[in-house]
Amino acid sequence: MKLRSLGEDAVVAALTRALPLAPDVRHGAGDDCAVVGGPRARWWQLLKTDAVLEGVHFLPQEKPARVGWKALCRAISDIAAMGGTPQHALITLALHPECELAWARALYTGLRKAASRFGVSIVGGETTRSPGPTFLSIALTGRVQRTRCTLRSGAKKGDALYVTGTLGGSITGKHLDFIPRLAEARWLVENIRPSAMMDLSDGLASDLPRLAAASHCSYTLNEASIPKTKGSTLLAALTDGEDYELLFTIPPRARAKLERDWPRQFPKLTHIGTMQNATQAGKPPPHPHHGHDHFA
Amino acid sequence: MKLRSLGEDAVVAALTRALPLAPDVRHGAGDDCAVVGGPRARWWQLLKTDAVLEGVHFLPQEKPARVGWKALCRAISDIAAMGGTPQHALITLALHPECELAWARALYTGLRKAASRFGVSIVGGETTRSPGPTFLSIALTGRVQRTRCTLRSGAKKGDALYVTGTLGGSITGKHLDFIPRLAEARWLVENIRPSAMMDLSDGLASDLPRLAAASHCSYTLNEASIPKTKGSTLLAALTDGEDYELLFTIPPRARAKLERDWPRQFPKLTHIGTMQNATQAGKPPPHPHHGHDHFA
Repeated sequence: MKLRSLGEDAVVAALTRALPLAPDVRHGAGDDCAVVGGPRARWWQLLKTDAVLEGVHFLPQEKPARVGWKALCRAISDIAAMGGTPQHALITLALHPECELAWARALYTGLRKAASRFGVSIVGGETTRSPGPTFLSIALTGRVQRTRCTLRSGAKKGDALYVTGTLGGSITGKHLDFIPRLAEARWLVENIRPSAMMDLSDGLASDLPRLAAASHCSYTLNEASIPKTKGSTLLAALTDGEDYELLFTIPPRARAKLERDWPRQFPKLTHIGTMQNATQAGKPPPHPHHGHDHFA
Repeated sequence: MKLRSLGEDAVVAALTRALPLAPDVRHGAGDDCAVVGGPRARWWQLLKTDAVLEGVHFLPQEKPARVGWKALCRAISDIAAMGGTPQHALITLALHPECELAWARALYTGLRKAASRFGVSIVGGETTRSPGPTFLSIALTGRVQRTRCTLRSGAKKGDALYVTGTLGGSITGKHLDFIPRLAEARWLVENIRPSAMMDLSDGLASDLPRLAAASHCSYTLNEASIPKTKGSTLLAALTDGEDYELLFTIPPRARAKLERDWPRQFPKLTHIGTMQNATQAGKPPPHPHHGHDHFA
């Protein structure tokens, strides 16, 4: 069976089933990052890889510094979504031999800029030949206090569902120069303790069902409340993807504090729905619109 | 200037100059792995990424399980070359939508087999679409006792130069099913304390000058002593690459113990040369034959 006919989630599920795991692995494949460390350790390590490919995640004519920024910030966004702090990055870069050194240098300018801004050390990696398209993969480590590590799987019935920023229209530019919500996520885990959190990379219509499924919940979504980027339709806000905003849930009792304290330091935050009991089938209903599926 | 005209080492040097590094980075780009941790910590963390591309590192008709084995074992070989133990792997896989799920599953069979054999936990990664060739990148963490961490840069004038196994002819099969020298390297750092060590991936003629340059040394090589794989010429042994054997140096006083104790547990080991003072230019002479250069 071809990957195209299966879709991304089914492919990942088929490949990552029953992987060999040592006792120090707290959470393997399935969340924004892997989590490793002793069960009672004060700090856990977060591990993430993320790739951008020419022709899939960026176009050949794109400015290379923006591609470098995007690549590192995508991985930082995943560390943020666990409540963590990014630390060390390795850069794997496959380039065609006809590529200009100036192009690769500019790519690194973007990587350095993102690394400096968010406190990441670029400690190495690999540069190799590509037979065709440019391939850039980031491996990023981070750390998180055990008691603040926030998974996709902790949402409970009745929890309130929030999203930062606005959704949709990322392709007009934001997908290349977004700011990962590192400060917001850290404030949330220190002050509000979300029950579940993830970053939005494939679009709310794809990612919310993932959070709900991981939490064995369903959800109600108030579509009228979804914050749309200027010029975006509701469909675009649901399905464009590459928003890199935070999607999180909190117990209802924490809403007052969140809605009082958030605006003092951060921009837009929107209450968009409520977590519900799982349906009888034990799976959340798929959203009628689908976000980005890499193989479809 | 095009990458093709510069060669791999010059490209890597141009890109990785003056990267942002936090104080906990012991060794950044330039060795087999990056090393992070507190200056007096008992354990340091090793970080490595390594990629294999269809059409560069393996052919489309290759058995996918062997490709998976190779990809993970290449990274394990680098952890070994630092004196470390591999721990957690993340798999980044870019596949064409027309790829068969069975092919990807078989690739993972090879990854799992290598992970189980060498005690690695596969904790996640990413599966995405490739516009063309298959791309597989491994991010691997490991750990090493601070006092046993072995760099390329510690060789001194007069140190004896050794290589494990035989060199050359890897393309006939060994490049897909080699055994990383993890047990040998661990024994060496615990019993002999090599002054410098690396794994041979691009061929002795490329890799030995790198070790010598990192150590600010030159070297004399006894070409007649170089252990050749059956059917390989001296040129092949020097330049084929993908041997994944250990190249290391030890002080002369350690030679007797090494040559007495090694054969009791491990196969072939060969004394192939001696480290010398750097030439006046401060650089080791390039070997007249060159190993694999990814951009040339």
